[in-house]
Amino acid sequence: MHPNRRVFLGTAAAASIGGILARWPSAGAAQSMPSIDARQLRERIEALSLFGRPEGGAFADGVSRVAYSQADLDGRAYVMKLMRAAGLEPRVDPAGNFFGRREGREPNLPPILFGSHIDSVPEGGNFDGDLGSLAALGAIEALARAKIVTRHPLEMAVWCAEEGVAFGRGLSGSRIVAGDIKPADLDQVWNGLKRSDGMRLLGGNPDRIMDAVRPKGAHKGYFELHIEQGGNLEASKIPVGVVEGIVSIERYRVEIDGFANHAGTTPMPIRQDAMVAASQLTLAVREIVTKYPGRQVGTVGHIHVSPNAPNVIPGRVEMTIELRDLSTDKLDTIGAEIRARGAQIAKDTRTTVNIGPLSRNPPALASSDMQALIEKSAKALGLDSMRMPSGAGHDAQMMAQLGPMGMIFVPSVGGVSHSPKELTSWEDCARGANVLFGAVLELDRA
Amino acid sequence: MHPNRRVFLGTAAAASIGGILARWPSAGAAQSMPSIDARQLRERIEALSLFGRPEGGAFADGVSRVAYSQADLDGRAYVMKLMRAAGLEPRVDPAGNFFGRREGREPNLPPILFGSHIDSVPEGGNFDGDLGSLAALGAIEALARAKIVTRHPLEMAVWCAEEGVAFGRGLSGSRIVAGDIKPADLDQVWNGLKRSDGMRLLGGNPDRIMDAVRPKGAHKGYFELHIEQGGNLEASKIPVGVVEGIVSIERYRVEIDGFANHAGTTPMPIRQDAMVAASQLTLAVREIVTKYPGRQVGTVGHIHVSPNAPNVIPGRVEMTIELRDLSTDKLDTIGAEIRARGAQIAKDTRTTVNIGPLSRNPPALASSDMQALIEKSAKALGLDSMRMPSGAGHDAQMMAQLGPMGMIFVPSVGGVSHSPKELTSWEDCARGANVLFGAVLELDRA
Repeated sequence: MHPNRRVFLGTAAAASIGGILARWPSAGAAQSMPSIDARQLRERIEALSLFGRPEGGAFADGVSRVAYSQADLDGRAYVMKLMRAAGLEPRVDPAGNFFGRREGREPNLPPILFGSHIDSVPEGGNFDGDLGSLAALGAIEALARAKIVTRHPLEMAVWCAEEGVAFGRGLSGSRIVAGDIKPADLDQVWNGLKRSDGMRLLGGNPDRIMDAVRPKGAHKGYFELHIEQGGNLEASKIPVGVVEGIVSIERYRVEIDGFANHAGTTPMPIRQDAMVAASQLTLAVREIVTKYPGRQVGTVGHIHVSPNAPNVIPGRVEMTIELRDLSTDKLDTIGAEIRARGAQIAKDTRTTVNIGPLSRNPPALASSDMQALIEKSAKALGLDSMRMPSGAGHDAQMMAQLGPMGMIFVPSVGGVSHSPKELTSWEDCARGANVLFGAVLELDRA
Repeated sequence: MHPNRRVFLGTAAAASIGGILARWPSAGAAQSMPSIDARQLRERIEALSLFGRPEGGAFADGVSRVAYSQADLDGRAYVMKLMRAAGLEPRVDPAGNFFGRREGREPNLPPILFGSHIDSVPEGGNFDGDLGSLAALGAIEALARAKIVTRHPLEMAVWCAEEGVAFGRGLSGSRIVAGDIKPADLDQVWNGLKRSDGMRLLGGNPDRIMDAVRPKGAHKGYFELHIEQGGNLEASKIPVGVVEGIVSIERYRVEIDGFANHAGTTPMPIRQDAMVAASQLTLAVREIVTKYPGRQVGTVGHIHVSPNAPNVIPGRVEMTIELRDLSTDKLDTIGAEIRARGAQIAKDTRTTVNIGPLSRNPPALASSDMQALIEKSAKALGLDSMRMPSGAGHDAQMMAQLGPMGMIFVPSVGGVSHSPKELTSWEDCARGANVLFGAVLELDRA
């Protein structure tokens, strides 16, 4: 791992942002060559890391800022304080998302929306979400410093509960804004907290939850800067990823039933060992997923063995299979092949193997125009970029349902994420923030 | 599964026991053709099953009579009541084992010891231990009915805590009698119960625990009748197993360290998936164990995956490998090969695989004389028998340290044990009990 270095955007890159502004009709302040304040961005990411930092720990010890926790409330208050100082009065929507709006010159135009989230997984890192949220604020401040007023209103978003730790996966604040909310969702209880009460903690209003839903076309486009959470950019030595889309996630629940019996007295040939079947299936998933070209992934991440004693042959194994790819056709092919292999394994091991669908998230494609704008912004800054799928889910996935979506990735050191070891160099953070800034300006003039 | 049928020992078999008695100098009652009271044996096994039976359940629903539980205390009281009715005053030793002694004609001879246990695993069956304990009582009663006095004193034993559920595995009452007891063992706590207090519950006396230890040669020989707990006898259609010895049990603890990472963003080629390594090793254990001729077995029964989430690549797996065989040389060979394979898997999967020894129980061989006596007894009853290892541990294993040991197996339907489905036909129970009875008489005259 290379150390975090305090590197600011060089003059060349700043000049290029100036270049974008020069092409932009009302860029009266082009000479100021505005860019994100990289030092401030770093200081804010470090300051935000205090909310949820392990006791006695340092920045590198990561953060546990699970949605609805005190750390989450404190982190939100910190970001809102920054927004107010920047002249953006935060507006909390009924779901608990918060927004800061800067008006544009043409009041009838829809806003350009951009942002991310600041909640984390337990024992997570300090870049996932935080970077995109604070870079969004930094972009608006950079415009203010340069006294630039865009055509469109600009709206920064800090989505709540993106990580889906509380109340189980899925119902993030951005998902609610995209319209996926049922009254029963409000009554869900997690750790003794009702979801509706959780929304109130965040300053939301569950009684008016439907007001959080935005219609299609409510914004001109949505941008999100995020760490890659994988190792592709680092391996390719390319600083900017242009996300083609967020992959479809397909989960299967596998139940394997053999027969639990005495590990000393049951001869090998007559065993019906569910763990042997589970092992064969785990290796089959890997084999089938990797035999097709492409970037699809497949994971057996959760395993539960019964009775799970050293001296008893496993009688039952429950496990999950998760497949991800941009192409649902490919996922269908792979899924069918895994199920066929499961049937064969059941026969070979004298067990029953039941592979049933658990959940399926459709892919969310980035608009090709938005991808082009991001590439243009990167190019203007003299930065190489590459197109790539996002293997992880993001708020951008939900926003893709309401309008054009574009995502910018920056390298994750070692591809590590959801871990205190999550790391993106400050230089890459600043680069990404400036690509976001430039892309917003490109969209404004598009 | 064939149904339990109420079948009593036929006239031919009873006549054969008469035959043994006829060859036996003082067999004044040879004409009575004594044999175990098979109906009574069944009734007692059924009555004992009430202590620890699931509420509202039937005999076929099995039993939970874990050592030191109220069910265990009640079951012990029931057996002691039967002993008193048979004129055997139960003696509880300091460990909590209990014994009933019938004097012989030659007071200087050591006793012939035989018995089993009546504690069970949670959700166990009604034959494991119960059969051997109640058959031991039945054998002494059969002699009394026939007014036969043996040369040697006879001593029936009901060992405590054989299943090793309470206080972890290993320190059964019979193990203490064999001398494997340290003062610190008495202070162990399980479910809020101190082991010394547990012994007191059983009527034992932990303050004098060393008085429970018997010296080598304290008895002439030890017999135990037990269900096979495997499917070999049933598959071979042979009613009597003559145990060659109790296998060595070798356990390894395996720790596999990969790297936990995002299941969506981590490309397949760079993964360090501990579950993939664990699956390869699980299949390797089966492959290596089965490639040698013989009856050795190998089991991966316990698996713990971290972080065990559907969307995280497993970073760590802990698992157990258990190997069993009568030959420690063979276990050494297999163990070495598994360790070598583990090293190769670590390389292939870019994980670390650490396979360390957890425990090793040496094998306990049955004396060849005792095996011959059992075969003779079976033959006299017109029953086929086969020699076989015991894959499970037994009290006989401990008694083998003090003198000649012999074990009789009867078929387990479907090879099931440690399960409510554990089943031995009443016919086979009676056959086994009479083989025990005959073997005791054979040893008495040997």
